[in-house]
Amino acid sequence: MNRKVFPVANSRQSARAQTSRARDTELGPREQLLAATSQLMTERATADVSFSDIAERSGLNSALIKYYFGNKSGLLMALVRSAIGESMAQIQTLLGMDVPAKEKLRLHIAGIINVYYRHPYLNRLIHHFMNEGGETYGPAVAEEIIKPLTQAQQVILREGVANGEFREVDPVLFYMNVVGACDHLFLGQYTLKYGFGVKKIDDEFRQRYAEHVYDLALNGIQA
Amino acid sequence: MNRKVFPVANSRQSARAQTSRARDTELGPREQLLAATSQLMTERATADVSFSDIAERSGLNSALIKYYFGNKSGLLMALVRSAIGESMAQIQTLLGMDVPAKEKLRLHIAGIINVYYRHPYLNRLIHHFMNEGGETYGPAVAEEIIKPLTQAQQVILREGVANGEFREVDPVLFYMNVVGACDHLFLGQYTLKYGFGVKKIDDEFRQRYAEHVYDLALNGIQA
Repeated sequence: MNRKVFPVANSRQSARAQTSRARDTELGPREQLLAATSQLMTERATADVSFSDIAERSGLNSALIKYYFGNKSGLLMALVRSAIGESMAQIQTLLGMDVPAKEKLRLHIAGIINVYYRHPYLNRLIHHFMNEGGETYGPAVAEEIIKPLTQAQQVILREGVANGEFREVDPVLFYMNVVGACDHLFLGQYTLKYGFGVKKIDDEFRQRYAEHVYDLALNGIQA
Repeated sequence: MNRKVFPVANSRQSARAQTSRARDTELGPREQLLAATSQLMTERATADVSFSDIAERSGLNSALIKYYFGNKSGLLMALVRSAIGESMAQIQTLLGMDVPAKEKLRLHIAGIINVYYRHPYLNRLIHHFMNEGGETYGPAVAEEIIKPLTQAQQVILREGVANGEFREVDPVLFYMNVVGACDHLFLGQYTLKYGFGVKKIDDEFRQRYAEHVYDLALNGIQA
């Protein structure tokens, strides 16, 4: 997790807790709870896990969840920040790279698909916070994830137009199309399973899909 | 609703009910309950509406929901079938049309976006049945919606390759990409709102998006 990018409530207590309470592991209790939640959600392919399951898996008292995160929403939002923090920080590095805009677009698309692949519960949590469960953290998700992503893609598109690589394209339509394609690989896994008999997204499939989405996007905007 | 395509449980009782109970409207109670649910979900932009709200809006006793649909899942699945029935029947017409494959692809994409646009709760319900709420109706959604859609797109792609319009493309990756783009316009409305300040998808936006998704898809597979 990149705390510079995502300052987290209670991060001081958490840092102290890591130092004083860590026992047979290098992770503090706060990070142990996050890791247990992440493992359970990945294994069960659902974002619906209980406090008692998290307590059992982490070997910690479930009261600590309230202590560190306030409530379930707080825990889920901390998980989103933990999963996405590093990738969001890399966006600025990507934008500053001395490569053609189309290479930035390729890395941008692969980056979105990779972060979803590594954290299979991530886009369900983001959808949760931007829809039904959005009262508390919806604005934070918008500010910390949606806005930086949309702005980054617009920078890449403008750069590509300026240096003659891309033709002009509506950035709103293009974003919804490309990010929707990335999203659907994970949110629409039932289609893979029932429509095409693909039971599991493995690393090779992930890479082929990222190249496919990039190819289609590039063909569509290449000057 | 096309009952030939989607035989619905209790449809005989429902047909009798329509004849005997219809009062100040041409709709029978079963259809009144569906219409009330559809209205409420559209107005509130959520699939989370209560039996008592549906009863109030329809002017009918909420016990009738159990009578006609068994439970909430039964009601939601009937709503999915009602929303999508006509469009699914049109797919066969589309496939049989004497037009180039790329025109079929254009109509196919516009058709998916249109049915989501007319029934804004539809893709949330489909996601619900294919994920968390899939115990009862997941297989039905797969059989009645996912399979016909994936098969139809494959027919169009093969036709386009056979007559020299399209190059060979992986039908699984292509489907996930294109349908993900269609899906995201509605499932990712928070991105439109928070990332781009687009508050509402109107008819003009819907049409521009359908053309954009088609253009990108066609550019990507054109021979």
